[in-house]
Parts: sequence; structure tokens; C-alpha cells
Amino acid sequence: MAEKKMWGGRFRQKTAALVEEYTQSVSYDRLMYRQDIAGSKAHARMLARQGVISQDDADKIVSGLAQIQEEIESGNFVWRREMEDVHMNIESRLSELVGDAGKRLHTGRSRNDQVALDFRLYVSDAIREWQEQIRAVIAELVKQAEHHVDTLLPGCTHMQPAQPVSLGHHLLAYAWMLRRDYDRIADCDKRTRVCPLGAAALAGTTYPLDPASVAEELGMFGTFRNSMDAVSDRDFALESMFCGSLIMAHLSRFCEELIIWANPNFGYIYLPDAYATGSSIMPQKKNPDVAEIMRGKVGRVYGALTTLLTTVKGLPMTYNRDLQEDKEPFMDADKTVSNSLALMAGMLSELRFNTQRMAMVMRSGFLNATELADYLVGKGVPFREAHHITGAAVALAEDKGKALEDLSLDEFRSVSELITDDVYTVLAYETAVARRKTQGGTGPDSVRAQLAELAAWLA
Amino acid sequence: MAEKKMWGGRFRQKTAALVEEYTQSVSYDRLMYRQDIAGSKAHARMLARQGVISQDDADKIVSGLAQIQEEIESGNFVWRREMEDVHMNIESRLSELVGDAGKRLHTGRSRNDQVALDFRLYVSDAIREWQEQIRAVIAELVKQAEHHVDTLLPGCTHMQPAQPVSLGHHLLAYAWMLRRDYDRIADCDKRTRVCPLGAAALAGTTYPLDPASVAEELGMFGTFRNSMDAVSDRDFALESMFCGSLIMAHLSRFCEELIIWANPNFGYIYLPDAYATGSSIMPQKKNPDVAEIMRGKVGRVYGALTTLLTTVKGLPMTYNRDLQEDKEPFMDADKTVSNSLALMAGMLSELRFNTQRMAMVMRSGFLNATELADYLVGKGVPFREAHHITGAAVALAEDKGKALEDLSLDEFRSVSELITDDVYTVLAYETAVARRKTQGGTGPDSVRAQLAELAAWLA
Amino acid sequence: MAEKKMWGGRFRQKTAALVEEYTQSVSYDRLMYRQDIAGSKAHARMLARQGVISQDDADKIVSGLAQIQEEIESGNFVWRREMEDVHMNIESRLSELVGDAGKRLHTGRSRNDQVALDFRLYVSDAIREWQEQIRAVIAELVKQAEHHVDTLLPGCTHMQPAQPVSLGHHLLAYAWMLRRDYDRIADCDKRTRVCPLGAAALAGTTYPLDPASVAEELGMFGTFRNSMDAVSDRDFALESMFCGSLIMAHLSRFCEELIIWANPNFGYIYLPDAYATGSSIMPQKKNPDVAEIMRGKVGRVYGALTTLLTTVKGLPMTYNRDLQEDKEPFMDADKTVSNSLALMAGMLSELRFNTQRMAMVMRSGFLNATELADYLVGKGVPFREAHHITGAAVALAEDKGKALEDLSLDEFRSVSELITDDVYTVLAYETAVARRKTQGGTGPDSVRAQLAELAAWLA
Amino acid sequence: MAEKKMWGGRFRQKTAALVEEYTQSVSYDRLMYRQDIAGSKAHARMLARQGVISQDDADKIVSGLAQIQEEIESGNFVWRREMEDVHMNIESRLSELVGDAGKRLHTGRSRNDQVALDFRLYVSDAIREWQEQIRAVIAELVKQAEHHVDTLLPGCTHMQPAQPVSLGHHLLAYAWMLRRDYDRIADCDKRTRVCPLGAAALAGTTYPLDPASVAEELGMFGTFRNSMDAVSDRDFALESMFCGSLIMAHLSRFCEELIIWANPNFGYIYLPDAYATGSSIMPQKKNPDVAEIMRGKVGRVYGALTTLLTTVKGLPMTYNRDLQEDKEPFMDADKTVSNSLALMAGMLSELRFNTQRMAMVMRSGFLNATELADYLVGKGVPFREAHHITGAAVALAEDKGKALEDLSLDEFRSVSELITDDVYTVLAYETAVARRKTQGGTGPDSVRAQLAELAAWLA
Repeated sequence: MAEKKMWGGRFRQKTAALVEEYTQSVSYDRLMYRQDIAGSKAHARMLARQGVISQDDADKIVSGLAQIQEEIESGNFVWRREMEDVHMNIESRLSELVGDAGKRLHTGRSRNDQVALDFRLYVSDAIREWQEQIRAVIAELVKQAEHHVDTLLPGCTHMQPAQPVSLGHHLLAYAWMLRRDYDRIADCDKRTRVCPLGAAALAGTTYPLDPASVAEELGMFGTFRNSMDAVSDRDFALESMFCGSLIMAHLSRFCEELIIWANPNFGYIYLPDAYATGSSIMPQKKNPDVAEIMRGKVGRVYGALTTLLTTVKGLPMTYNRDLQEDKEPFMDADKTVSNSLALMAGMLSELRFNTQRMAMVMRSGFLNATELADYLVGKGVPFREAHHITGAAVALAEDKGKALEDLSLDEFRSVSELITDDVYTVLAYETAVARRKTQGGTGPDSVRAQLAELAAWLA
Repeated sequence: MAEKKMWGGRFRQKTAALVEEYTQSVSYDRLMYRQDIAGSKAHARMLARQGVISQDDADKIVSGLAQIQEEIESGNFVWRREMEDVHMNIESRLSELVGDAGKRLHTGRSRNDQVALDFRLYVSDAIREWQEQIRAVIAELVKQAEHHVDTLLPGCTHMQPAQPVSLGHHLLAYAWMLRRDYDRIADCDKRTRVCPLGAAALAGTTYPLDPASVAEELGMFGTFRNSMDAVSDRDFALESMFCGSLIMAHLSRFCEELIIWANPNFGYIYLPDAYATGSSIMPQKKNPDVAEIMRGKVGRVYGALTTLLTTVKGLPMTYNRDLQEDKEPFMDADKTVSNSLALMAGMLSELRFNTQRMAMVMRSGFLNATELADYLVGKGVPFREAHHITGAAVALAEDKGKALEDLSLDEFRSVSELITDDVYTVLAYETAVARRKTQGGTGPDSVRAQLAELAAWLA
Repeated sequence: MAEKKMWGGRFRQKTAALVEEYTQSVSYDRLMYRQDIAGSKAHARMLARQGVISQDDADKIVSGLAQIQEEIESGNFVWRREMEDVHMNIESRLSELVGDAGKRLHTGRSRNDQVALDFRLYVSDAIREWQEQIRAVIAELVKQAEHHVDTLLPGCTHMQPAQPVSLGHHLLAYAWMLRRDYDRIADCDKRTRVCPLGAAALAGTTYPLDPASVAEELGMFGTFRNSMDAVSDRDFALESMFCGSLIMAHLSRFCEELIIWANPNFGYIYLPDAYATGSSIMPQKKNPDVAEIMRGKVGRVYGALTTLLTTVKGLPMTYNRDLQEDKEPFMDADKTVSNSLALMAGMLSELRFNTQRMAMVMRSGFLNATELADYLVGKGVPFREAHHITGAAVALAEDKGKALEDLSLDEFRSVSELITDDVYTVLAYETAVARRKTQGGTGPDSVRAQLAELAAWLA
Repeated sequence: MAEKKMWGGRFRQKTAALVEEYTQSVSYDRLMYRQDIAGSKAHARMLARQGVISQDDADKIVSGLAQIQEEIESGNFVWRREMEDVHMNIESRLSELVGDAGKRLHTGRSRNDQVALDFRLYVSDAIREWQEQIRAVIAELVKQAEHHVDTLLPGCTHMQPAQPVSLGHHLLAYAWMLRRDYDRIADCDKRTRVCPLGAAALAGTTYPLDPASVAEELGMFGTFRNSMDAVSDRDFALESMFCGSLIMAHLSRFCEELIIWANPNFGYIYLPDAYATGSSIMPQKKNPDVAEIMRGKVGRVYGALTTLLTTVKGLPMTYNRDLQEDKEPFMDADKTVSNSLALMAGMLSELRFNTQRMAMVMRSGFLNATELADYLVGKGVPFREAHHITGAAVALAEDKGKALEDLSLDEFRSVSELITDDVYTVLAYETAVARRKTQGGTGPDSVRAQLAELAAWLA
């Protein structure tokens, strides 16, 4: 086998089988075949434009590569492990198909800049798909929020009921998180979709290449500035996995809420059957498995980020083989992020809320206490004193096993004589929500403004 | 002590001392005093503009806060642990200074949006300083690279000599990494320097605030869109620490090279005395301690990122006290990144290179082998065959203990009859470098173009 | 200042202030003063026993060190930043106190093995304290569990009610987790409390030292086997932080439960006032701050572990200054773990459970469905069919808004004619729990057996 | 498809395809088929012994399972994705083979305790194999060290030459690291190979099982103590991955050294051809690819540890579906650790050292400076002064471009009149090494003692 290796000239000994297994990448980097072929086509055309190879050679290369892509996509391509990586597999097949022209494709190029190009395109294509999936999730959040502008639920801080909020507002909080994720990916893509071709092994090339035209053909933002950096830079993969980590962190937060809301003590949601499972032993159960697995999978993307951060630590110039360990963490993270976003959109589209249950719970959490304090302030009581009076009213209601709004006027007046009949209007939860109408607040006007802004963005 | 607590109304029992220690944050969040005061001043002025408080109150608040800032900066402010955090310490002192006006400052604001504002400003201020420090490091790299455009050293891949490169080119690889870091911070800052004031506890405020004018006064990019997101979002801190992680990864790579280059077997650099230390036992030693510690400290910033990523996993809406654990990791990461950049700039400014040693080593690594292969290709030999012939020539030279360019013409012709006298020009290292003159290559023209682009950017 | 440095002989330039700040460790390693002094005393006595120094010198050293310890503990010791670390600060003071004898203390020792010794003792002392704190938490869990052997609550899988369990059993699950943590620390300590003294700088010493006797005096398990390993090994610190990570993971799980249980929709617990806080705006709130912060702090220990794992990656032999970055992560992790365990013990001792609420909730979760299925199996129905019948009964009860045990016999018989009057005994929650009496089950007998085993262990 | 699901009774809607993909585990957990079958056999035999099922049923189950194992190992078993996991695939096939007896296998068992058992056995089997592989690596280190007891190389601290050491001693440093790894795994195994069978879903079982006899049949150390802990505990997987992280950290350190030593400026080793690769462009290169990839792969195991640490954070009782994310990280880490150890043993067995090069380099690093200082101390010079004199001698030799031992006596006496002719014996590197003969030192006697201890351990 050694004699088939391109670099075998000086070697006498056969590569041990385990070494081959340990060092090969074709089992996973073949996922990059589209990017490899697109890059090679663009390279070949540029070589012809620059007069480095003939137009005839370029044409043969381009059509040979097109045929290879067909073979791969129809399942007729034979991937060979001993060919190590996607690049050698394709190059070798190309030579079979178009002979010497195929051998001229690698002119002015090295595996170092070729793999950097392929991986950059692969990552960029993947994260752009994340963006589309984020849009889909936001669209579902918007749809649900539109139905629930006026649905109230107890808003929590510290997982304790704090103030009534609109369910629509609550859901849109996630829309805005994901909107940031979208923008962060766009920023990342500017640094990812940059063309390293022409960096060659590490020092640049002696051929009169035109990297800018390759970049343009591939829809890239520009070209590398320094060949040594170009072949050893994996910042784009790290930044992408960081973007993915935040997406998963956001989804894990929402999943946590769905899991808690699905517990009968909350009972805020009906889980769609398709996104839940039962128990073989306990027939009453309806488990939020998809939400749980999604919450669990955040670890996987954090782990992938940790993997590559560790790998790049302390690596001297330039390309080191350690960097081959860049693809599997990204590919695993990509699968996780992409599937999670798709499932979240699907799950959201079928999610139904038990608004009656929310309304019932609302009454048991003293969520209008702030309103009482504000009311007292309005009557001239200093804020800190109003706060203490309200505390006393809450304690009284708690002792009586009542909601605040169910205290009698006499009971109210036992804590402060300033309280009069108008307190009951103030204590209505709808009032509390409607009053918070400034930008970004939970009042219906504010929620509708958010919906409008997001709808415009989606359009 | 409990009765001093603002929220103590309903509580009967004294807070245990260890609880106080565990839950306080003033020991570190007081570093945010400038941001807290700036935010409060802007809030007070806005309250007055909106007619929520009187102009007189606002004036008193602003001058009281100015006095507090003076007290803090002159070391005359008494920080009280039982006041828990920077906010309560300052607010309490303000009430002492300006009485009731001070108590009105908190109108329409909650600790939740206040701490978010302060921390956002703090992070933004810190990463903008990183940007300045990055500029300083790039400036030093440019200065060194200008002197070493024509200095050659063996360029490595796999830590094996590969092709000759310009030392200036090698150094600029780091400049371009840091340039990306700079841009990434700018993108991060757009999401960091956003004003959450008006989100209040979680649901927005009932007062007619004008968050946009506060944002403008504080030089922020805009305002929050959703109050629930605003009080629970710490993405900006995570993104900043990710930016810091990449900066440290880049520095760790350079430090690794400096440490290896300082080893006498390489001997490429003279470590500046100020950045090295000696040994109490081995007087001959000159240890690259600063570079080692800097390489070691990359772990610290990765660790800080891991810390907060873990903390935010699975947190339900909205503010949870877990989020208090956001500041110490960022502050530690900030100190590490900031000091490391400052020291790297200083160390670079005094670093001297042993160019003679580099030139000597160049001759021992067969770095012109690619040139020989190219030469043979130029004579019509197919590339793969040229590669094999070159391998044979290298093996011959290795056996003879010579550099490739020291083989006699007879020796060369024993591996290929096509080799003639002109091979020696081709094998000159300067030729090899100069030929790589396309954009981003290691040739002097390319390096000078990089220098020009970076100089323009620095200016 | 440079001339005061012990290694300054060959250096001409003053160390930059920032370098001093960056490279010093005395600001934190002074916490190891007790270990440093104990190690130095043992070293001095051994040197005298071996005839390397005089007994008189050893006596002076020992009493000088005792005095220094007093100075430190009474706050009269002046720590000097320019002396870099705890070792030089103490050694320098010793020379002041006892003159030349002090200078002989360092014979046969290097800072490399000295710092390794000090840090090993420090880590060992710390994790042994964790063990005591774990015992205290287990003791509190046992106490609570003793009171609640017969208290039932809905046991969950997937956060969905599954089967009734004993609250005592539930609490003891944490006791067994912590018991594993205890044992894991004991294993870790065997590898931590090992004496590296005699490894010197890296190669061992030329003096006839007796490391075993030093190890014995310091209560260590043995001595190093290889000097190069001894000065560069930090596995013990990593293993300790891993032990700490699992402790915090376990505490984070319990805190999550406490936080959810404190939400009024659950209402399972009354938070002790000392471990909760209120809200300055919402007087009704009682926030589980300590549990939240503790849950948040798990990130910090994970982060510390990540820090040092990153630092040791790829470090060549032997001591590298990167390793100085070992102490701060451990010390921060130690503080977190130690305080968290102490607070958990305290919080547990005051925690009260709302057992009525648990009993009420029990009735709403169909937690006896498995019992019905088992009952049907007992009547000869194949298990999978029994499961389907039970599912139908649950659906029926759900539609009627009843608990399973509240279905009438007619209703039961509408899903299966095999159901008779005895079904109501089977459906009693107490029966369900009592039947699970095998080892490790939730039945009272099993819980009492667990309590007995843990009590024996605690004693 | 829904009707095939065991838990489908209450569900109306078909599970979405992506959900099936997202929630299935059979694509990876089928690797646990041996453990699943062994566990089920032991469970069946125990059920018969306890009289829960008939002996005839047990016999049928056991032989059915044996047949399934044959089918799997011969590649004739059809794994079905819609059957979700390894357990349902095997159980379903068992029912086909042995009918009703197969359906009785699951008596007293739940998927929760079954998966815990399988995974514990799988992890235990894997880490015991690591132990064997560690022994193999240590055996190779011992073999190499035996040949190189007397080979000297410059021992480094701070990557700077410090003192001469024995190459055998240097190699054995890694043997002792791995020896710790071996012991740490043994400790971990005590907590891993513990039987959870009988915990059932979460609450224990109502059947009179005998978990201890199952544990014994499976060679386990004991049984679970608490059913709720038993089904939710994944500490063993975390601890195993931590053990793997340290193994990889140790290998990464050795790989770093091999990579540096393979650089021609060091030139200490000849890389075995089978563990290196060449370059398609630069025929002179011999790249240490295996060592580089191995160094890179440390990130992968750290990442797997991070993954699961994140997943378990904050999980409430008991089993949550998040925990399904435990297997892939462990399996990936296992593959990495296992292959890396195997390759390290192979690489070591073929590694050859360039001892002449080491000897040559030794002379250029002033590694005998400590000896000179000791010599002066022997002449009565106080240590700190001796250190300064030695510094001056080093500076002199550096100026003259000489080794210390090449200074003339006159030159020596220009820095101290106390130096006489006997200094040259002292400065011989062999002397320096031989003098460090205390336990764990680098002297040949100490190295031979280490070899004897390790050989005894290996035997």
C-alpha cells in the first residue's frame, strides 16, 4: 500500500494498519465532497484564465469533477480508506477519468490550502443553514406569540412568581435571543468565508495565481492576507462552534421551561405527541423526551468547542497535523445544532398552552404585590415604607390562604388606612400588565410592537 | 444586620455569616463603580427630562454621585460587605449625602436591569481596551517585521523544516490573527453595549421612561427589545470571553514559538532580560518565564468561558441568582487578557533575533527541496516523478551529511541527468522566497504589501 | 530591586513592574504558609539527622520557622511582593531571624520540589476537610431522612410523576452520591499526599537525604519515584478538582430540586429564612438565593478543572513556569466546594418539608398506574396488554378529572372486566411504596436499612 | 410505526421521522450488545433461582440470547432503527425466538436499571482494557530505558538546559505517570462495576430479586444502595473520562517532546517510518504525524468530559432523558484513549535515539554549572556567593563561545582563585549524573532501582 501513497518515496516500511486508521480522515471529511469539487472547479478555471494550464485541460477537469459529483451523489463512488482523505480520493478518481489533465489540477495548490478552503466553505454553508433554521424557529415563536399577546402567566425571577407577564412576551424573549444568534453567525461568516487558496503549503505559491477571482466564483468575502496564517488558522471553526454553543444554551433554557411546564404541578403546556414518549412501565406518563435530549445535547456542543480550543492551544507555526482534529467536533456540533433547531421549530408549531391553568396559578403567587406598593407610593407613602406595608399585606393574605385581591377592604385597612376601594382595580393582573407599555415591556402594545419588528425582519 | 437589608420586611431570622459571604458581590463588583455611577447619572437626568423626578432632585443626585466617585477614587469610600453589592453601597451613601432625592433615583429601575447595565458597560469598556492593546501588539509586530522582511528562517509545517520564509512574514501571521480578534471584538461590542435600562425587574416599567436617551448619553448602540430577555441575557459576557479565549490561544501559539526559539538548539532569539528570569540553582539559565506563564494562562480564560457556559445552561426565565456568577470569570479573564497583551507588546519591543543562527539552521533542513522538484518540472519531468527524484537527492545529501546545495554536479546527475549547473541559482534560499510574491506569500514584495495594509489600518 | 532577586547575577535590566505583577505568586501562594513551614521544619530535622547540617542549625531553623508562623498568624508578617512567592518571603525572613543557619535550610532542595511539596500538602489538607464537610452533609441528610421514612412524594422520571417514593429515600439518594465523593477523595489523597522532596530541581540531589523520614513526619503515604516526574506532576491537583466537580454536580442537582420545590406550584419546602432573600420591589418573594448561587457555582469548579487541564496539555519535561497557574484554580475551587458543602449542611438542618402538599400532589399524578398494571398481570393479563388497559384507565380518569383511585368500580370495569373491589387496596400509595422493600428500594424497610448503614459509617 | 412502540398506548400521532432519528440510540448503543446479553442472562438465571420465572423459561431465554449473540457477531442480526435502542432490538428478537418466555425476561426490571447495568459493564470492560494497554506502554518504556540507563541528555526546566539526566530516567518519568493512571482506573472501576439491577424504573422492585447474585455472576464489586441514585448516577462515566483525560494529557506531553526531538535542531530521535508520513510537495520531510494527531486528540477526551459534566449539571431526580447523551462521549473517548495507547506502545517499540546528537548538545548548554557551584560550596564558599561566581564563569564561557569544561584553569581563576585542577573531574557530565543516586534521582543506581520496581510490577 505504501507505494500508492503520494509521499512514499523515501519510506521503506509499510504503514501499520492502526496508523492508517488513526490518521485517515476520509471516513468523515468525505462529507465535504461538494465543497472540494466546487473549490477544484474554481481553481481549474482560474488556472486556465491565468494561462497556467490550457483551457482544454480545465474543461476536462471541470467535467470530470462534475461526473465524480454525480457518482458520489448516486452512491456509485468507491471511497478508499487507504487514500486517506476526500481530496486524494477525488483527485485519484479524476486522474482515472481525465488522465494527465487531472494531474495538473493540483498546480499551485497544496493539501494545506485545499483543506482550509474546503473546510471554510463547509462551515460557512452549515452556519448559513443554521440561520435559515433560526428564522424558522423565530417564525414559530412569532406565530405563537401572536395568539398569546393577551394570555397572562406568572413571570418569574429566581423561579418565584414575581409579576404577571404576557405569554407572548415570554415567548418573544427567546425570539430575541435567537435573533442575536442570527446576527452573530453573520459576523462569523465574514471571517469564515474567506479564500485561503494560494497559500499553498505555507509560503505562498510561485505560480501567477489570481485568488480573488476564485473567491468571487465561490461567493467568498475576500482572500487570505498571509499564507502562514492561512494554512494554520482554525478560528472560524471555533467561532462557529461558539455560535452553536450559544444557540444550544438558549434552546436548553427553553427546554428547561418546557420540561417544568409539562410537569402536572405547572401544567402550562400540552406536549405534542410527536415530541413526547411514554413509559413501558408507567402508562400514565407522557415524557418530554425531545426537550430533555435537547437540553442534554448542549453539553455536546460545549464539548466540541472545548475539544478544538484545547487542540489549538500552543501550536507553533504553521500547519500541524493536530489540526486534522478540527472537523469531527464541528460536524458533530453541526448535526446537533441543526437537528435541534429543526425539532424546536416543529415542536413549537404543535405546542398548545393551558391558558386556564396559567390564569389559575396567577392568582396564587401574590404577583400583584408590586402594584399595591406602587399604589401606596401614589398615595404619598415613601417607597421603602410602601414596600413594608405590602409585605405585611402579603403576610396577612398568606395566613388567610387568600390571594391579595381577595382580602376584604377591612383587612387591607388593617395594614394601612390609606387603602381604599380603588385598590381592587389596581390589583387586577390585566392592569398590571397593560401598564408596562414602554418599549420592551410586557404590555400588549409593547408586545405588538415587538411582533411587528420581528415580522418585518422575517419578511 | 437583617433590619438593614432592603428586602428584610418579611424575615425574622438573622442571615448567617457564611451566607452573607457566599451571596455578597461587593468584594468584586465594586470594580464597576464607574459604570454604576455613569448609569445612575444618566438615569437621573432622564427621569428629570421625563418629568418623573424634579430637575432639582436630578441635580442633587448627579452631584452626589460625582462626590461618591471622588471618594472612591481617593480611597475614602467605606465599602460595606453587609450592603452586598456595589449598587446598594453607592445608593446608601447617596441617601446619606442628598437625602430623599437619593431615594428617588431608583424610580422605574430594578437591581436586575441596573446590574445588567453596569456589567454591559464594564465589559464593553474592557474589551475596547483590549482593542487598543491589540493595536499596540500589532504595531510592535509591524515594527519587527519591517526590520526582518529579508531575514530568512526555516518555515515549518509539522514542526519540520519545509520551505524558507521571511521572518517578517512569520511575525505578520500573528498580526493578522490579532487583526481578526480586533474585528471580532467590534462585532461583540455591538451586542454588548446595548442598554437594558427600563426592563426593570423583568416586565418593564410603568413609568414613562426614555431608554433611548439614556443609551445615547452612555454611548450605547441601542436599547433592549424585550424586558425578560434583557434581565437574563449574559450572551455578551460569554461572547467577550470567547473573544478573549481566541486572543489567548493566539498568544499561546506565539509563546510556544518563543519558548522553543529560546532553547539553545534553536537559538533564534535573545530574550529581553526584563521578560526572563534566572534560576537560583543553575546560574547559566535564562528562562522564558513570561512566555511560559502566558502560555499557561490560556487555560484560565478557557476556564472562565467554561464557567459561564455551564452556569447559563438550562436556566429558566428570567433573572436567576446563578447569574451573579457572571462577573468574577469575566473579571479574571479580563485581567489575564489585558495583562498578557500589554506584556506581549513590551516583550516584542525588546525582542532581538539571532539572524545568523537562523541562516545557519536554514542550510541543514533541505528547505530548498521543493525548488529542486519545481526545477525538474520546468525541465519537463512530471511532477510526481520530480518529487521522487528530489527524494533521492535528499537521501543522497543526508547520507553525505551535506546540504542539498552542497552536492556536486556529479552527485546531482547521479539522481537525474537533467540537472545542470543552473540548479545552484535555483537552490539559493533567497530565490525560493522571492519567487513567492503573490498576495499573501512570503516574498518581500508581498510582505511589504502586508506591512503597508497594516500600517494604514493602524493609522 | 533586581539585585535582591536570588537569580539576578547575570541580569542587567530592572524587571518591569508589570512583569513582577504577572509572575509573582505571593498574593495567593501565601495561603500555603503552614504547609511551607511544616515542610521546611521536616526538611531541616532530616538534614540534621543525616548529618548534612548541624543539630544546632536545625534547632535554630525550626524555632525561627515557628516564630514566623506566629508572626503570620498574628498579622505581623510583612509579605513582600518583590520576593515573588511564599517560599522566598519565609526564607528571607528566616535568614533575618537566624542568620547563616537559615541559609543552610535550602540545602539539597530546590524551589521545584519545595513548591510541589507545599502544594501537595495544601491540596491534601483541603480535600480532607471536604471529607469532613461531606460527612456533615450526610449526617444532615440522614437526620432529615429519619423523620421522613414514611413521608411520600411523587417520584419523578423525566420530571414527570412516575411512582410514589419515600421522601427519606429521595434524600438518601444524595447521601449515597456524596458517600462516593468521600471515597473518591480518599483514593485521590493516596496519590496527592506523596512526598516529592529530594527531587530537587529535576534530577535529584547529591546530598544523602532521607525522603522517607520526611514523608513520615508529614504524615504522607510515601515518596516520589522519579525526580523528573515529581517536579512536573500536577495530576493530584487535577484529580482533586475533578472530585470537586462531581461534588458540585451533585449539589447542583439538589439545588435544582430545592429551587423547583420552593416554587409555589410545587410548594414542597419551606426555605429557611437564613438561606433565602427577598426582593426590594416584590415584597411577596422569598428567593432561594443560596441554592441558586450554589447551582451557578458548579460552573466555577468545572472551569477550574478546564483551566488546569488546558495548562498541562502538551507540556514537555520537566518543570515549566506554566505550572505556576496550578494554584489559583485549585484555591478558587476549594473555596467554592468548601463553602458550598458547609452551607448545604446548614441549609439542610433548617429545611422543613410541606408534607401535606406532597400528599395532595401525589393524588394528581396517576402514580399508582404501575400498581394497576401489576394487579392486572396478577389476574393473568399479559404485561403488554395490562399496560394498554392501564393506559385506557388513566385516559378515562384524566377525562373525568379524577385520580385513578377515585374511579368507580363501574368505570374501572368499563376498561377491564377483571377489575374487582380489591383494586382500591392495591392503588393505595402506601401499599405501592411498602411493596418495594428489596435492598435499595423505596420501601420503609429498605430505607431504614440504608439509614443503619450510613449511621454505622458516620460513627 | 407508532403502534410498534411499547409505550404507544395513549398516543395518537405518528412520531416524526426526525424525532425518531434524534431520540434513537441504537446506532451507537448496539456496541453494548455483549453487556446487554450477559446482563440479561444473569437476570434470567436469577429470576429462575428466585422462583419468579420457571427454570424452563430461563433456559430458553439464555439459549435464545446466546443465539442472538451469534447472529450479531456473524453479522446476521438486523438492527432496526425504529426499535430505538439495543435493549428493544434484542428483546424483540428474543420474543421471536423463544416466544412468551422472552416476554418474561423483563420482569422486575426497567429500561432504566437495564441501561445503567449495560453501560457500567461496558465502561468497566473498556477501562480494564486501557489498563492492559497502559501495561504495554510501560513495558516498552522499561525496555527503552534499560538500553539507555547510561545515555545522557540535557535535562530541561523551562525548556532550557538545566542539568544532565539519564535518557532512561527521562523515559521512566512517563512510566510513573502511566502507573498512576493505572491505579486511578482501578479505583474508578470499584465505583463503576457495581450492579444497579433491581432499582427498576426508580423506586425498586416488588419482586423478590437477588441483586447480589447477579452482581457476583457478572464479576461486579457489589450492588446499588439506593434505587433513585442507581438509575440517575453517571459518575462512573465521568470518572472514567477523567482518567482518560489524564492519560491523554500524559501522552500529549510525550508527543510534544517527540515532535520537538524530531525537529532537526534537536535531532534526538529517528521516527519509525510506520509512524510518520511524508509530504507530497516537500520530499525532504518526515513528519511526526502520529505524535501530532495524538497530541491533538487530547482535546477530544477533554471535550467528552466537558460534554457529560455539562449534561449532568442541575438534573433533578431521577432518570432524565438527557442522560442518554452519556454514551457517545464515552465511546468516542474510549476509542481515542485505546487507539492512542496502542499506537504509543507500537511507536515506542520502534523508536531509535540519536545518542551522539544528545551528547553533542549536552556540551553546549552549561549543564554542569550547578556542579561548579556545588564545588565552590565544597571549598567553603557560601551558596549564594558560589552561585554568583558560577554565573560569572558561565558569562565568560559564553563570551568565548566555549563549554564550561573547556575554560582554561587561568580563565577559571579569573573568576575565583579557589578553583583548582580538580574542577575538571567535577564538571564531567557523567559525574554529575552519577552523583544523583538517591531514590528517584537520575543516577544509574536510582534508574536501575526504578526499572526493578517496574519490572516486578509488570510481572
